[in-house]
Amino acid sequence: MVKVAVMGYGTVGSGVVEVLCRNAELIENRAGTAVEVKYILDIRSFPGDPHEDKVIHDFEIILQDPEIRVICETMGGIEPALTFSRRALAAGKSVCTSNKELVASHGAELIALAEENRCNYLFEASVGGGIPIIRPLNTALTAEKILEITGILNGTTNYILSKMEKEGAKFEEVLKKAQEKGYAERNPQADVEGYDACRKIAILASLMSGKTVDCRDIYTEGITGITPEDFAYAKALGMAIRLLAVCKAEPDGYMAAVSPCMLSEDNPLSGIHNVFNAVFVCGNMVGETMYYGRGAGKLPTASAVVADVIDCVKHQGTHIWCLWDREKIALKDFGQVTGRFFVRTAVSDEAAVEELFGTVEKIRLPECPREFGFVTGEMTQDAFARKAEKLPGFLSRIRLKD
Amino acid sequence: MVKVAVMGYGTVGSGVVEVLCRNAELIENRAGTAVEVKYILDIRSFPGDPHEDKVIHDFEIILQDPEIRVICETMGGIEPALTFSRRALAAGKSVCTSNKELVASHGAELIALAEENRCNYLFEASVGGGIPIIRPLNTALTAEKILEITGILNGTTNYILSKMEKEGAKFEEVLKKAQEKGYAERNPQADVEGYDACRKIAILASLMSGKTVDCRDIYTEGITGITPEDFAYAKALGMAIRLLAVCKAEPDGYMAAVSPCMLSEDNPLSGIHNVFNAVFVCGNMVGETMYYGRGAGKLPTASAVVADVIDCVKHQGTHIWCLWDREKIALKDFGQVTGRFFVRTAVSDEAAVEELFGTVEKIRLPECPREFGFVTGEMTQDAFARKAEKLPGFLSRIRLKD
Repeated sequence: MVKVAVMGYGTVGSGVVEVLCRNAELIENRAGTAVEVKYILDIRSFPGDPHEDKVIHDFEIILQDPEIRVICETMGGIEPALTFSRRALAAGKSVCTSNKELVASHGAELIALAEENRCNYLFEASVGGGIPIIRPLNTALTAEKILEITGILNGTTNYILSKMEKEGAKFEEVLKKAQEKGYAERNPQADVEGYDACRKIAILASLMSGKTVDCRDIYTEGITGITPEDFAYAKALGMAIRLLAVCKAEPDGYMAAVSPCMLSEDNPLSGIHNVFNAVFVCGNMVGETMYYGRGAGKLPTASAVVADVIDCVKHQGTHIWCLWDREKIALKDFGQVTGRFFVRTAVSDEAAVEELFGTVEKIRLPECPREFGFVTGEMTQDAFARKAEKLPGFLSRIRLKD
Repeated sequence: MVKVAVMGYGTVGSGVVEVLCRNAELIENRAGTAVEVKYILDIRSFPGDPHEDKVIHDFEIILQDPEIRVICETMGGIEPALTFSRRALAAGKSVCTSNKELVASHGAELIALAEENRCNYLFEASVGGGIPIIRPLNTALTAEKILEITGILNGTTNYILSKMEKEGAKFEEVLKKAQEKGYAERNPQADVEGYDACRKIAILASLMSGKTVDCRDIYTEGITGITPEDFAYAKALGMAIRLLAVCKAEPDGYMAAVSPCMLSEDNPLSGIHNVFNAVFVCGNMVGETMYYGRGAGKLPTASAVVADVIDCVKHQGTHIWCLWDREKIALKDFGQVTGRFFVRTAVSDEAAVEELFGTVEKIRLPECPREFGFVTGEMTQDAFARKAEKLPGFLSRIRLKD
């Protein structure tokens, strides 16, 4: 019998307790011993909850209890999750977390602390919810030099873009409906501005490079500027629009970015709809692989936390290998990253477009009579910005996924 | 430094040697020690090959050499692979294999033998080539009761069906082209009759149930009967046709089958084209997940074998948990498995169709004036067969994926 503590009894935390109860028998079978929740730490009380008797408010109880070998940190945010995780690991108690903010900012430190204390800091649930992606990177694609990871890592924005695509609706309208349905938070900034996807690609980029990729170094652009007209152009081009989080190993260094992209309908990521997430991983031997599933939600995310708990139980007293060094990696200057761009500009810019971008195929939509769209050749972000500045009627641009 | 032996220097075996050489540095980093090929066992010699000096013809050399801790079995077929694997495991040497035939028929026995001798029998490459699927099932989805696994597990047949769909071509024509391009074997029976997919779903079904699912118990139907007209009907229905290998945990037992199916364009498996494979896994907590990539080919398959080698190196002296008992599981009688069917029948059958199947929507194609198609309600395979027998003009049927 192994006893665990769950810190944070919100959506994911209560899901962890539910998964551990509902699948108790098979979890016992796979962990080699029964796994039981002993404490639930939360500042709130939960009168009437079936697990009410396990709710405590003092972290010290968990820390001082030698029976607790594994802790699920489903609190979110940096503090007090960071302090609790540090103290737990220092005491040799493994921590399994869904807290992408903490993993992105302190992952390397906490993994090192776990290693020093022969326990584990596992975070499968921090990226892609229930989709196994951390394990495939750490334990399956081990013979690979990873060349690229591109993910649809935020369910809220993918839901909004899917709906806009399907219904021709405006961003604000769809966001409002998504909020009503509970698919988007009341304060949706972290999702729609791309910050959530940024944290997740920072985690994947760190695992890909083996060093620490700092969120703050990753170019991040959200979806608030995407319009129904953009989707009309995308359709005319046989493309989809998705918020992509990308990290690539290029000959002159790693690049990472989050931004809405147009991508061909042949790209498997273009087929990912609604709240689903997917992570595309390209290795130098295996080529393209992709992992797909529910990137959020109570039970899928909790399932990933519990899979980590089972791993901790099976590996008591040993540290599971994870290459993520504290050394910070200098990403390529995003201005120097090359790509192609879809541009919308006023009809009066025709001559300027030709001069700046050469001969391009102009896409004209009956519903947008005063403008046209075109796709540029490949150039750096900086070069594109300089050219776009010279278009007096420039309206907008969306990057193309190569 | 760990020395390995590669048995069978064909496509996959030479790929294993290539991956180990080309990615040597990162493999050393992840395995914690250098991994070097010491022997290559094959009945042939390879004059001029850069690894010519490692080629041996006598298995006893590998068995007697205490330096060899891990063996890659990339020979294929039952014998002598089975005898060599048994003797290697009995001597405490781990075996990593791409041999789906052997894993499907003797997996449980060889895993048990590995456990007894504190070493490992790993087979990530036996299903889905380079796609990590065995590990996600064994180490990631551990908190899940797996309810369904449905895979596109054979690249050759998926290539043929993709081409037929795209070009409106006949099975025989596309097969011939696929053979010319090397995508299909000269003797294509194992692929086109579904036997290859059957072995692979037997492996996945065994891992799903924890017991042994015998290939011979799995209903298996290939794609040789699929015609361009079927694709025309599928298009009219907004569906795709794929060879699906399915295993489901139903309330009254496990069912498993391989057969061509029509599936909705909303199903993520309908977007899997050409030689790509994909495995859809549904768990009771996580819901739908999917794993996608190259299901065959030298380097992708070799990459999966080498990932297993790295795991064996990291787990020397310990057995990695895998629940696959020798006890054989009795699958549900396929005749009692329910589903819906797409049927083509002669126009003269209209009244009989109505009598047998009730009111159905008739799909008529201008290019098929003497027949019509319809989709039945849900019924058992046996009930359908009895009804179909009563249609004098019955032409063909394809199962619908639910």
